[in-house]
Amino acid sequence: MKAFNPEARFISKIKSLYIGDDAALVNGLIYSADAFCEGTHFLREWMSPAQVGRKAMLVNLSDAVAMNADPLYALVTVMLPRDFGPGQIDELAGALKQTAAEFGCEIIGGDTVAGEELHLSVTLISCSDAPLLRGGIQPGDLLAYTGTLGESKRNLEALMRGENIPSDSRFYEPVLRRDFVRKCRKYLRAGMDLSDGLYCDTDKLLDYNGLGMELLQEIPEAIGSSGEEYEMLVAVAPENLEALRECARKEGVPLNVFARVEENDRRFPCRDHHLIES
Amino acid sequence: MKAFNPEARFISKIKSLYIGDDAALVNGLIYSADAFCEGTHFLREWMSPAQVGRKAMLVNLSDAVAMNADPLYALVTVMLPRDFGPGQIDELAGALKQTAAEFGCEIIGGDTVAGEELHLSVTLISCSDAPLLRGGIQPGDLLAYTGTLGESKRNLEALMRGENIPSDSRFYEPVLRRDFVRKCRKYLRAGMDLSDGLYCDTDKLLDYNGLGMELLQEIPEAIGSSGEEYEMLVAVAPENLEALRECARKEGVPLNVFARVEENDRRFPCRDHHLIES
Repeated sequence: MKAFNPEARFISKIKSLYIGDDAALVNGLIYSADAFCEGTHFLREWMSPAQVGRKAMLVNLSDAVAMNADPLYALVTVMLPRDFGPGQIDELAGALKQTAAEFGCEIIGGDTVAGEELHLSVTLISCSDAPLLRGGIQPGDLLAYTGTLGESKRNLEALMRGENIPSDSRFYEPVLRRDFVRKCRKYLRAGMDLSDGLYCDTDKLLDYNGLGMELLQEIPEAIGSSGEEYEMLVAVAPENLEALRECARKEGVPLNVFARVEENDRRFPCRDHHLIES
Repeated sequence: MKAFNPEARFISKIKSLYIGDDAALVNGLIYSADAFCEGTHFLREWMSPAQVGRKAMLVNLSDAVAMNADPLYALVTVMLPRDFGPGQIDELAGALKQTAAEFGCEIIGGDTVAGEELHLSVTLISCSDAPLLRGGIQPGDLLAYTGTLGESKRNLEALMRGENIPSDSRFYEPVLRRDFVRKCRKYLRAGMDLSDGLYCDTDKLLDYNGLGMELLQEIPEAIGSSGEEYEMLVAVAPENLEALRECARKEGVPLNVFARVEENDRRFPCRDHHLIES
């Protein structure tokens, strides 16, 4: 473990007004970028090129969905391994294009280079009438997450032991909560998608708002440290909790209230969830 | 050499209406993305982290400048090598931020991952009142390039032989023709920056317009295959040639007219100029 966090240091040095949310909101448009890299996010023996292309696009679309935004355009930069054949390239490109199209998003540009590994970086341009951001949380608000957490970590660990996992695993195929965010937006104070795990992402949300929490239930490590779940983490004012529960129920989305926001400095133990630690 | 071009194949598979220019022009904004990757564009022993950050940003800014656009915002995705220390991270981030700022551009987002190599991908959002595009060239138009070509290739070859090159070499520090493009835009039919070398970029421009050329002067290999020059390649209607010459002279920019556009299929011999061939 390094004595400093390289990612945080890099970001603090290029920091602008806009960095901090999942995406930057500028002049009515929302800009976000996420990398999806061999060795960090996946190994090539675990996933077909089509699965890599689909997940690379889904984890980016998740940023837009989590902000209650409609993705409009994507730019895709890809490092293509020199041993990739035409069939693999077609699969990768086809999955990127098809997945973007499912969300109404068009790939308008990008860049390709040849290299040793398969790395992707996607930039999305989105728009929203009512963006859901990270700020504005008040003491007394409730924190909740959607869905069931833990499968992504269990399946990642199975892959690392050399086992197979189901092809519909959310490690391959994250389920984005687009309808939940759209329909229930009006009851939400703040929100973000769970990409680094409930522990780390809750800490990030609390850091951003300069607040702490009181746990209403214990979160086991198997749930709290499961990264890349792409469920939603939301904050709700107490007076909106029942309306939010009803809205989530209508959408068929489980809602788990796990903490109350307080003026303290309580945090979860956050650890890097990537394949290879920094 | 592969029997197919992996980059062209990938792009053809995700192709949209907008791909083809240096950048996509959508709803009044211009979007472009370029990767700058260890092993493909540079070796780490050749360049300091500050030089890498500066060139990664300059080659992207060049896309905007070449379209007569003002870069507004940048998103930067970076793979940071695990052996990078705090000083190297600060240098890299500082150079990215400073170089963007010199062109009035702010870094508003991005992503960082840890990896083996140093790779950067930058997306720029720009705007222009009078964008300079690749299309619209007519038979009889003249093709010209700015400046003096060849240094980038000579210096790359020196680096590959293990020699040192001057710290102000355009291999480190491309000179962008921002004032030339702005001031002389009205005399230009079409244009693009020279990133892949005069041979390959002329071919690209002619392919895009479905036209050929008649050479007015021989272009030696040492000039035609020098990549990453970031000078401008422009097309000018014959009736505007003298006005363009005068405009370039006022800006102190050498202008070399080298071909006339014709309805034939003549092309230069284009070869990959990267460190390691695909």
